[in-house]
Amino acid sequence: MKTHHLWSFLVLIFLCPPAMAQEAPLSSASQACLACHTGLHPGIVHGWEQSRHSRVTPQQGQQVDGLASRVSARDIPEDLASVAVGCAECHTARADAHADSFAHNGFQVHSLVSPDDCALCHSTERKEYRQNIMSQARGNLMNNPVYMDLAQQIHGQPRFADGKLDFTLAQRTTEEESCFFCHGSRVQVQGTETRSTDMGPMDFPVLTGWPNQGVGRQNPDNSLGSCTACHSRHTFSLAEARKPSACKECHVGPDVPAYKVYTTSKHGNIAAAQSQNWDFQALPWTVGQDFTAPTCAACHISLTVSPNGSLIAQRTHRMNDRLPWRIFGLIYAHPHPREADTSIIRNRDDMPLPTDFANNPAREYLISKKTQAKRQETMQGICSQCHAQSWTDGHFQRLENTIQTSNQAVHTATQIMQTIWDQDLAQGLGDGHSPFDEHIEKTWSRIWLINANKIRFTSAMAGGGDYGVFAQGRYELSNNLAHMQDWLNQQTKKTD
Amino acid sequence: MKTHHLWSFLVLIFLCPPAMAQEAPLSSASQACLACHTGLHPGIVHGWEQSRHSRVTPQQGQQVDGLASRVSARDIPEDLASVAVGCAECHTARADAHADSFAHNGFQVHSLVSPDDCALCHSTERKEYRQNIMSQARGNLMNNPVYMDLAQQIHGQPRFADGKLDFTLAQRTTEEESCFFCHGSRVQVQGTETRSTDMGPMDFPVLTGWPNQGVGRQNPDNSLGSCTACHSRHTFSLAEARKPSACKECHVGPDVPAYKVYTTSKHGNIAAAQSQNWDFQALPWTVGQDFTAPTCAACHISLTVSPNGSLIAQRTHRMNDRLPWRIFGLIYAHPHPREADTSIIRNRDDMPLPTDFANNPAREYLISKKTQAKRQETMQGICSQCHAQSWTDGHFQRLENTIQTSNQAVHTATQIMQTIWDQDLAQGLGDGHSPFDEHIEKTWSRIWLINANKIRFTSAMAGGGDYGVFAQGRYELSNNLAHMQDWLNQQTKKTD
Amino acid sequence: MKTHHLWSFLVLIFLCPPAMAQEAPLSSASQACLACHTGLHPGIVHGWEQSRHSRVTPQQGQQVDGLASRVSARDIPEDLASVAVGCAECHTARADAHADSFAHNGFQVHSLVSPDDCALCHSTERKEYRQNIMSQARGNLMNNPVYMDLAQQIHGQPRFADGKLDFTLAQRTTEEESCFFCHGSRVQVQGTETRSTDMGPMDFPVLTGWPNQGVGRQNPDNSLGSCTACHSRHTFSLAEARKPSACKECHVGPDVPAYKVYTTSKHGNIAAAQSQNWDFQALPWTVGQDFTAPTCAACHISLTVSPNGSLIAQRTHRMNDRLPWRIFGLIYAHPHPREADTSIIRNRDDMPLPTDFANNPAREYLISKKTQAKRQETMQGICSQCHAQSWTDGHFQRLENTIQTSNQAVHTATQIMQTIWDQDLAQGLGDGHSPFDEHIEKTWSRIWLINANKIRFTSAMAGGGDYGVFAQGRYELSNNLAHMQDWLNQQTKKTD
Repeated sequence: MKTHHLWSFLVLIFLCPPAMAQEAPLSSASQACLACHTGLHPGIVHGWEQSRHSRVTPQQGQQVDGLASRVSARDIPEDLASVAVGCAECHTARADAHADSFAHNGFQVHSLVSPDDCALCHSTERKEYRQNIMSQARGNLMNNPVYMDLAQQIHGQPRFADGKLDFTLAQRTTEEESCFFCHGSRVQVQGTETRSTDMGPMDFPVLTGWPNQGVGRQNPDNSLGSCTACHSRHTFSLAEARKPSACKECHVGPDVPAYKVYTTSKHGNIAAAQSQNWDFQALPWTVGQDFTAPTCAACHISLTVSPNGSLIAQRTHRMNDRLPWRIFGLIYAHPHPREADTSIIRNRDDMPLPTDFANNPAREYLISKKTQAKRQETMQGICSQCHAQSWTDGHFQRLENTIQTSNQAVHTATQIMQTIWDQDLAQGLGDGHSPFDEHIEKTWSRIWLINANKIRFTSAMAGGGDYGVFAQGRYELSNNLAHMQDWLNQQTKKTD
Repeated sequence: MKTHHLWSFLVLIFLCPPAMAQEAPLSSASQACLACHTGLHPGIVHGWEQSRHSRVTPQQGQQVDGLASRVSARDIPEDLASVAVGCAECHTARADAHADSFAHNGFQVHSLVSPDDCALCHSTERKEYRQNIMSQARGNLMNNPVYMDLAQQIHGQPRFADGKLDFTLAQRTTEEESCFFCHGSRVQVQGTETRSTDMGPMDFPVLTGWPNQGVGRQNPDNSLGSCTACHSRHTFSLAEARKPSACKECHVGPDVPAYKVYTTSKHGNIAAAQSQNWDFQALPWTVGQDFTAPTCAACHISLTVSPNGSLIAQRTHRMNDRLPWRIFGLIYAHPHPREADTSIIRNRDDMPLPTDFANNPAREYLISKKTQAKRQETMQGICSQCHAQSWTDGHFQRLENTIQTSNQAVHTATQIMQTIWDQDLAQGLGDGHSPFDEHIEKTWSRIWLINANKIRFTSAMAGGGDYGVFAQGRYELSNNLAHMQDWLNQQTKKTD
Repeated sequence: MKTHHLWSFLVLIFLCPPAMAQEAPLSSASQACLACHTGLHPGIVHGWEQSRHSRVTPQQGQQVDGLASRVSARDIPEDLASVAVGCAECHTARADAHADSFAHNGFQVHSLVSPDDCALCHSTERKEYRQNIMSQARGNLMNNPVYMDLAQQIHGQPRFADGKLDFTLAQRTTEEESCFFCHGSRVQVQGTETRSTDMGPMDFPVLTGWPNQGVGRQNPDNSLGSCTACHSRHTFSLAEARKPSACKECHVGPDVPAYKVYTTSKHGNIAAAQSQNWDFQALPWTVGQDFTAPTCAACHISLTVSPNGSLIAQRTHRMNDRLPWRIFGLIYAHPHPREADTSIIRNRDDMPLPTDFANNPAREYLISKKTQAKRQETMQGICSQCHAQSWTDGHFQRLENTIQTSNQAVHTATQIMQTIWDQDLAQGLGDGHSPFDEHIEKTWSRIWLINANKIRFTSAMAGGGDYGVFAQGRYELSNNLAHMQDWLNQQTKKTD
């Protein structure tokens, strides 16, 4: 063998990704886009070049059968199916449906690619996601007056006049920086502006609510959601969505501390030590072989298989499919809501909450014990790949205990709060008062919004111990309860 | 050279780990285990396949001499020594000693592999660990009524009746989710259950206190500890235990924030930037060559050598061997306890605390100044690999200053607390009262349990600056002191 | 081709870094250093061996033209220019200027290498850094009596006497562990000590304020700063300084939570998922090609280019060159100060603060709107590599809104505080009182020092949402305001 042969050989081994053997022609429209935008926005173009979209046509994707399939739609229009998924394939798709479409060098272009655009190829994922509570994240907040009152007492604009503090309604822009950053903004076309560009003056739509990548974003085509929330921008990466950092953007704060708890758990420890050697691209995703400890996606979303090829869990973008309980308290942990739209829920007191203040669940809006059991079984099927039955049983028994005892602790806090309300030491519901605006009410709401949630997340994810106790969990819960008692004592003494 | 020769050659280079040259036969018992469990628990089996245990027999391990030795036992039974360390070698070892042994397909199997099982090959590590304060972590909490009172005021079940809050004793299950998650549960056989399996109905023991991987776990063979706390599950990885993530599981919360402080220090910064290029598997572990900044293990546990092969520090599983001070305050920082069992300590007031409330140490139970000096010298020997003497001296002088001044600050807090107790504004020790249950007492305990600890950890690990000031350190300590003063002022005014 | 040829070939491919082709002779002085210190401090020597300094002479560096240039000085002394940058080249440079120089085996050695030493080759960086506000970090705190009062109320030594708490001046050693750890200590020679070494007794200077790597360190040659703050120790790594972990050491605490916000942002998410494949060494640094999401350095410091080679942003060590606003509140967000020395600022009330308590800016000391616009344009040029104009516009409009509304919220807090001062319920400025020492004042200062900062950082870095709301941001701001109101109510009732 000659040296130059060896060279070619090594080059082939080291440089050629398998997909290069396939042909994925670029549409003339996308070629036109790239002619300018490669220079204007190199970061975007490079991201796309790294993506599978740039290398494989939908048609080629459809030919992959079984568990490795990525393209769920069967009836993809021929002109879309036969080319690489380039700029134009997404940003000019369904142009008529998009209020943000605008004429741009002979094309009708829209900036926001919506879940309904992605559904042209990924129809099953779209369908599932529509039933995912996250797709309704905007409306579930916006259309719930109790939650909106709580939100206003947090991100409203504070004002102090005549010795009294209150919070006025937040500006839209402020809301988009706070709650709706994750829950999703409403993106609307407000008008048109002319910008001078290298190609002369050009018109562009002026968007409000933009930028945003919230999971329940209301798009200009009236679809809900944002695939880029997890599959960032133009790499549309499976690997990225499988890593815990994807979930961190919205699930790291003290009210929903999933990421923090994960990194403190044994699972997170193993991931930190070993995940540089895992294959985050493999499809299907094989337990033990491709990864040796679950990430968020492995338990909640991903299609996983056993090394012998047998299915462990079907992929789902309806992410509560494997969740019996909703553990972030509103105000108590409760069985998961039946419908993605939770603003329809009414409890015994006719409030839009899954339980009442005394922890009676609004049963008809929540899943049944049977559904809970089925979901738990699906989840345990994943656990059992690495854990014996007694391990898994013990773990879930503790979770049940934690749900019950943390709910009891919140109930105790609510009893103190009710005593304070009953004695007119604070103004609760009624007469237009907010139950969330006074100092002592905020201590009460912290107990269920932060402390009880932290306790339950650590239990659910086996990340307990020190972190669940001292990092805003049990320790702070007991401190806050003691503060409520102290405050009540002082007020009562005063009126003596 | 023909192409197919090249292929074989490349395959040899890229795929063959050196150990494959060795023969490590699998016992017939372990073969029997794998026959079913490869399919049932692929994650477990894959972990083990990745481990050194699957590739090397104890006998082969014994042949490694000197600093690279991993097998410290000299008298390993022949049948164990001559085979790979498979399922049966651990899970059927010392069957008679295990209360959790059960008949399973002709074998006496136990789920929990204990430190005494591991000691069959790793006897020195077992011996050291038994003298490690961590092996007593369960008893040191359980048998100390002061600590258990503090624990109850945190994880006990709150109750509000007749206008008064109190915390009743926590359920066992709750304790196992909180303190004993890290300190270690007591694992006991409660009975037997029959499960239907693919092989028909089978009997399994029902365990309480399970799952758990706490460092002081009380095992069914009455041994204490859990090697898997740091060497996770079936990979038994040296590399994993050398990474800071291993310690994070128990040492990240605000009371013992070692991991957080590390990642904020210069050491942690260098590790974040460079550790993907370090060799975490090398034995011995060579400073500068295998790693360029210490991890937790490098300073506290690992056998480290100089590039010229000379010993820097001997490996120890008695992890306070290099620690002159115990810096988490109970309630003051103090010289390390002499014995692993700290529940035997009695201070001047006959309380089981290493100091009294005025910071007088219980000297006879704590190491001497001479031992402190010796331990500090060992630690400084590690520092000196990368730091000149004046650097190291300056660092340790600051640590001494921080121990002294943070103790003084806690003393100031205790003076305020004592004033409050003396004026009957809160009920301290005596008459069955808890000094940890009232709001103002919880502010006091936070000062030593959280704030002073954070200050000392940042000093000890050179992670100071912004983090040690503002992240629950000096800033919060001064705020909490000011709150105590304010509370006292208000109470005093009221009684005027 | 014979097998041994293949071997040589593979060895060449895998082991030879390109730089090995160059000749970089070691000076005889550095050879003398290494003779002993290779054995004494292997970690230091290994770090240096990994560095570019060990492989390339300044002269060779000067020959690199254009954007890949690392050596900005033109007039490097011949004896320095022609050898590798070894121990002696830095530690004996400018010996006469160094008060810490000492005679050591025939050389005049100094432990601290200062920015003025580095400037022998890196003159432009030194010049820029001198104008960087960070180089004045020590004096900007030390020479500002308002800040020093705030500092004392945090890290001063608490004392409780006659029922009253106060904070006495902190020890120098304590200050060096807290504020000056990041801001920079003053390193001084206090005397000389004789140590017994392997080479017999030797004299060394005794340094105070050492160790320290603060950004505004006052060095024994009277220069200000510490290059090792970001380019750690003896690898002097470009890659390390480009990673967010470098900034974390000083910018992670709740008062300046840049690192935490970054890791929660989409940028941080992409970095977490992909950065193991980025080239952190490339010079210039090409967007899309070398990295696909910005790190701290990419936006604030680095020289970045487009894949077509065109310049995006010039490197700067005057790190506010791209910053229109200073968003950490003192006590309000404000246009960046004109000068690096901020202790010269006087507001309308003649206080050394960039605004007064009512948010009137000290305009003549702050940059103009025009300069702000120019800096914002530079920053947006970086954004535009991956984002369309409407995205960038929307982002910066939100930032402006957040600056305005968070300033208003701080103003509301200040109105409550002023009411409390006016009613003599707390002692503010005047008569030697501190506005930062009482409990309620600390609640007020927390609002601008922690909460408003967190809100603005999340806005500036698009890391908003859950984290900016619940992690010490809007949620805590509203809680703290409610607490101020509650405290005021209670005090007022009491005096009724």
